[in-house]
Amino acid sequence: MTGAPSRPLLSALVGDEEVEALFSSEAELAALLEVEAALAEAEAKAGLIGADAAVRIGDACRDFSPDWNALAKGLARDGVVVPELVRQLRDAVGEPHRGAVHMGATSQDIVDTGLMLRLRRVVAILSGRLEALVIALEEASVRDGAVPLTAHTRMQAALAFTAADKIETWRAPLARQAGALRALAPRILAVQLGGPVGTRGSFDGKGDAIAGTMADMLGLADAPCWHSGRDRIAELAAWLSLISGLLGKIGQDVALMTQSEVGAAGISGAGGSSSMPHKANPVPAEVLVALARFNAGLLGALNQALVHENERSGAAWTLEWLVLPQMAVTTATGLATALRLVKSLRILPSGGRARPG
Amino acid sequence: MTGAPSRPLLSALVGDEEVEALFSSEAELAALLEVEAALAEAEAKAGLIGADAAVRIGDACRDFSPDWNALAKGLARDGVVVPELVRQLRDAVGEPHRGAVHMGATSQDIVDTGLMLRLRRVVAILSGRLEALVIALEEASVRDGAVPLTAHTRMQAALAFTAADKIETWRAPLARQAGALRALAPRILAVQLGGPVGTRGSFDGKGDAIAGTMADMLGLADAPCWHSGRDRIAELAAWLSLISGLLGKIGQDVALMTQSEVGAAGISGAGGSSSMPHKANPVPAEVLVALARFNAGLLGALNQALVHENERSGAAWTLEWLVLPQMAVTTATGLATALRLVKSLRILPSGGRARPG
Amino acid sequence: MTGAPSRPLLSALVGDEEVEALFSSEAELAALLEVEAALAEAEAKAGLIGADAAVRIGDACRDFSPDWNALAKGLARDGVVVPELVRQLRDAVGEPHRGAVHMGATSQDIVDTGLMLRLRRVVAILSGRLEALVIALEEASVRDGAVPLTAHTRMQAALAFTAADKIETWRAPLARQAGALRALAPRILAVQLGGPVGTRGSFDGKGDAIAGTMADMLGLADAPCWHSGRDRIAELAAWLSLISGLLGKIGQDVALMTQSEVGAAGISGAGGSSSMPHKANPVPAEVLVALARFNAGLLGALNQALVHENERSGAAWTLEWLVLPQMAVTTATGLATALRLVKSLRILPSGGRARPG
Amino acid sequence: MTGAPSRPLLSALVGDEEVEALFSSEAELAALLEVEAALAEAEAKAGLIGADAAVRIGDACRDFSPDWNALAKGLARDGVVVPELVRQLRDAVGEPHRGAVHMGATSQDIVDTGLMLRLRRVVAILSGRLEALVIALEEASVRDGAVPLTAHTRMQAALAFTAADKIETWRAPLARQAGALRALAPRILAVQLGGPVGTRGSFDGKGDAIAGTMADMLGLADAPCWHSGRDRIAELAAWLSLISGLLGKIGQDVALMTQSEVGAAGISGAGGSSSMPHKANPVPAEVLVALARFNAGLLGALNQALVHENERSGAAWTLEWLVLPQMAVTTATGLATALRLVKSLRILPSGGRARPG
Repeated sequence: MTGAPSRPLLSALVGDEEVEALFSSEAELAALLEVEAALAEAEAKAGLIGADAAVRIGDACRDFSPDWNALAKGLARDGVVVPELVRQLRDAVGEPHRGAVHMGATSQDIVDTGLMLRLRRVVAILSGRLEALVIALEEASVRDGAVPLTAHTRMQAALAFTAADKIETWRAPLARQAGALRALAPRILAVQLGGPVGTRGSFDGKGDAIAGTMADMLGLADAPCWHSGRDRIAELAAWLSLISGLLGKIGQDVALMTQSEVGAAGISGAGGSSSMPHKANPVPAEVLVALARFNAGLLGALNQALVHENERSGAAWTLEWLVLPQMAVTTATGLATALRLVKSLRILPSGGRARPG
Repeated sequence: MTGAPSRPLLSALVGDEEVEALFSSEAELAALLEVEAALAEAEAKAGLIGADAAVRIGDACRDFSPDWNALAKGLARDGVVVPELVRQLRDAVGEPHRGAVHMGATSQDIVDTGLMLRLRRVVAILSGRLEALVIALEEASVRDGAVPLTAHTRMQAALAFTAADKIETWRAPLARQAGALRALAPRILAVQLGGPVGTRGSFDGKGDAIAGTMADMLGLADAPCWHSGRDRIAELAAWLSLISGLLGKIGQDVALMTQSEVGAAGISGAGGSSSMPHKANPVPAEVLVALARFNAGLLGALNQALVHENERSGAAWTLEWLVLPQMAVTTATGLATALRLVKSLRILPSGGRARPG
Repeated sequence: MTGAPSRPLLSALVGDEEVEALFSSEAELAALLEVEAALAEAEAKAGLIGADAAVRIGDACRDFSPDWNALAKGLARDGVVVPELVRQLRDAVGEPHRGAVHMGATSQDIVDTGLMLRLRRVVAILSGRLEALVIALEEASVRDGAVPLTAHTRMQAALAFTAADKIETWRAPLARQAGALRALAPRILAVQLGGPVGTRGSFDGKGDAIAGTMADMLGLADAPCWHSGRDRIAELAAWLSLISGLLGKIGQDVALMTQSEVGAAGISGAGGSSSMPHKANPVPAEVLVALARFNAGLLGALNQALVHENERSGAAWTLEWLVLPQMAVTTATGLATALRLVKSLRILPSGGRARPG
Repeated sequence: MTGAPSRPLLSALVGDEEVEALFSSEAELAALLEVEAALAEAEAKAGLIGADAAVRIGDACRDFSPDWNALAKGLARDGVVVPELVRQLRDAVGEPHRGAVHMGATSQDIVDTGLMLRLRRVVAILSGRLEALVIALEEASVRDGAVPLTAHTRMQAALAFTAADKIETWRAPLARQAGALRALAPRILAVQLGGPVGTRGSFDGKGDAIAGTMADMLGLADAPCWHSGRDRIAELAAWLSLISGLLGKIGQDVALMTQSEVGAAGISGAGGSSSMPHKANPVPAEVLVALARFNAGLLGALNQALVHENERSGAAWTLEWLVLPQMAVTTATGLATALRLVKSLRILPSGGRARPG
């Protein structure tokens, strides 16, 4: 039994290659190196290190050939990969500039800013998919909007309305939250620079300028050090769970509409059964419900990490690492799944027992 | 053993009378009646009911004398209190206007708008307390800011910094989130009007106008019907958990600072022990940690209610009722507790073993 | 608007007077006094205090007239009510025996053992209701078991089966878990005695004997001190959430069966709507779903309290107080609601589109 | 940047190769095939299919060469991998026995029984590690037990006790829960066989016998069909979170003991910092805290899946797949981490300010 995919089989159902790639080891390392290079360049601009040192560090970051095994061991030992990475990077830079690497910074500066770099890309992907989904819902409304449906309240047929009415209950909150993300993203995608204990005391008075330059170079917001104030992480996570929840509502509705007895919708290419060939299972709808419940639970875990003790909590930080990436990936999965679902959905006149509205 | 307080004893530690009052049965009923009166007045203005009917309904709402027992029974039977309340209110209004009561509306319009009325007051209370806390932190920084402290990362003494540095890690995210609430509140505190299935189809084409008038009268934002799109609820809940988490960070820090071996802070009036009279327990700090973890968990439960199936989910709606009020109350408790803690906190020079920064 | 019930209106839907009463301030105080009296009697038996002291303390506990206001203030100050209670109890006992009150014990001994006393009663109530529910399901199976139904997998009609088959999927796991509780309860309902730091070092070498006597007197299991090892609490909470989840499955199934388009079940006395008189809402079924999701989320919060630092964590302990009582109450509510639901349920032949099985 | 490990870098800190391997695609497929083979053999024994068919199927399962790509596509389409797997397996078996493959069974029978097979191995691993940890704690107590320590309650120095007292608070609940697992495992590790709708109606009256034979062959408990009654899953998950929580308590204690100002313990090989070479970070202790909080949150998500609607819920089932494997892996990680931590821990006399006990 060789040739198994490196991604788990389950990824075919609930994974997302594009966003998973941003949380791969390679993407993480690339982001860390991008931050170290930007730090050096910003420090050179501020006069903290020489321009030639920054050039050398930038080159070394670009050409960096990691000892992955040593990085893994370093992470296991130090709880964070940066000490070992800096060791390797200093070796790569060599004399006379090795001492200029990572100057004044601490692990958290590199890891958190590197995370923000990747989250910026995640947000762009999610935002694009969300817009596409809103458009697909508008198109579905144009296409099927006039189809008469039965509205249901408290799981009972209520009154007649139309597919357009139904679709609007799906579209409107997603459109609202696309707007919310536009307001949120510039505020939360921010550079982190603090030095060992968050005071920028190790940058010879030039910490603010260095952070500002780094922000510009990396396409992030400038911000005071936020090493132990993790509201940005929690705000993004809340949005991820919120989107997943809104998609779960669509999924639950579709699963109810496609019930054999209701017949208010059909999904082209619906899933098959190993024992009952007549069935057409609303698989993507079910996935949306599962992901909504999953991300709601994960949000409850992530917000535990707001209790980030002292000037750096290894425990709270590790908890973020365990939770946030999978929230991002599964929200991305949800958006892609919902888009496929909406595009393959046909709303059918439901002959339900509702009275005329 | 008579004379026990009607509030549970535990409320003395984790309760908040002011916000609890907004979730009392009386406050809920008062809000529902305020909404029914505003609905009638808005419908009269739109010409849907007569002006005299609206006046009569408004009078009846103001003078309403509920049969609480029947309301409780109605709630238990119908899953929502409004059907029985409307029955009683129609009796109170009497002929010829009884038919004008609740015209075109559904239970959810009244309950959700009534909730928003109360949340507006909750938000005002929380906002005021948050601002007071930010000011108290600024005052603490003025008072104690120069005290030398040892910063700690990963639970180890790191470098020297000052109390001002420490306090800023507490203040900055709270100030950020005070700003976030100012942006959030006007968007989420919105009138809900939809009629039986959310289409405003029962208002003779005047639903939008009626909703707009109601919003003006009630001090809420105007909004399209959001009966099954619960993002507003989730956004507020996320903010509540976020604030609780940031306060939990303060609490955890203070509990660590007041450790006997650290001695970096003292709390005047600290708690006593039944067996060890020499102890001074950091009770308010511990409470903040407990509330942070509590609200994080509750948020995970609340976001399950985003999967609000169909045009009204009794299950998801009931889940909101179970969770949101206690999140609001305990966030309020946390803010009051943090304010007391900060005012009673004295930061002391810690002789820790850190190296100079 | 006077005469509002002291219980919140929502209790009519999701409350449970019987179990709530066990978590009232009065019940808590009564349990604490019962423990103090048992402690004194056990200490007298072990020769740690005099027999007359124990008699006097027992009398004082029975006749105790609390200053509730001072208890609340003490709780708010000390984070636990026992120090102030002991103060009042010592005053009530008076000389020469006041010093014998609470001898060698710490607050946690009294509070945790007092909790266990009440949990024993909670478990008895839940156990009784669970058995009644299992019987009601058996009766429903006898009554309606032959009714032909359509089984549904992945929200699609699958094959024909019978009501007996359906009911068995509800009954079997509940019966299993009734058995699990019988094995669990004797193990977790245990006396807690440790003294100030959990070593029983303050009982003059007689701690084990005292704990054993207390266990006998109070109807609890004897156990070594478990002050900071909270697995018992977590095990009970997990069972509560598990039962709530199994009831939620019944609720979800019934809500699906009673759909207008499915018509596989009817609930006598179903809930009404304020705008659609033709509706018959499956309110108890929805409540079961809401409670299942609520308790699952609460369990996620409660297990955070397993991280009970040092020899007593004020934060983790307070978190338990916030969570466990409502899990017990809502599980009790769920069992009562499910019993009512099952008794009012009539299963109807569903004419669905399933193929013959 | 080639050569990145296929496991995420973070696995070096929080992963567990041994248990992860049991949740790999290969292990899942192997388990599914083992179940299909056992099913065929049991059906042959019961006379439902011919003995030669069972032999052929068993051979095909052993020699199976999967089309992974088609399996992934099938999973994405059908929501479960079994329909496509059965298709491939039937092709591998060929005529005249292809029709005997998967006879009477449904996807869930294969997937759930396959899960149980792997959980049996997981439980064996966890059980072994837990016993080793309990022994290591006993050894630590022998080695360091006499060291005087200061007990702490509510984050304050309380009274003197010994390292043996402290270690016992860690050991006792773990030993209790090792016992609990021994009682739990035989009950929950059970074969699942139900056929399309859980009635065993597709096995010609021989379903019970077939299930019994399968249980024997696979080393699982015999049990009635439990397709929609997911208490077994929830019970195991609760135990996983419970163990993680108890380990988190050890981690939190050690992190507090190793504080620079407390100095009550040292960890050999503690983690380094990229900016502060003098630091010795208690990385494994922090990891234990993070994993405890993570698994508590995941348990809150998993128990949402108890609301498993109808005769098979695609949504609830998928949610289990998302949550349970990572709970198992991180519990395994926690046990291995705790074992390393305990073995590298040296308890030091703490000169704290506690009064003599």
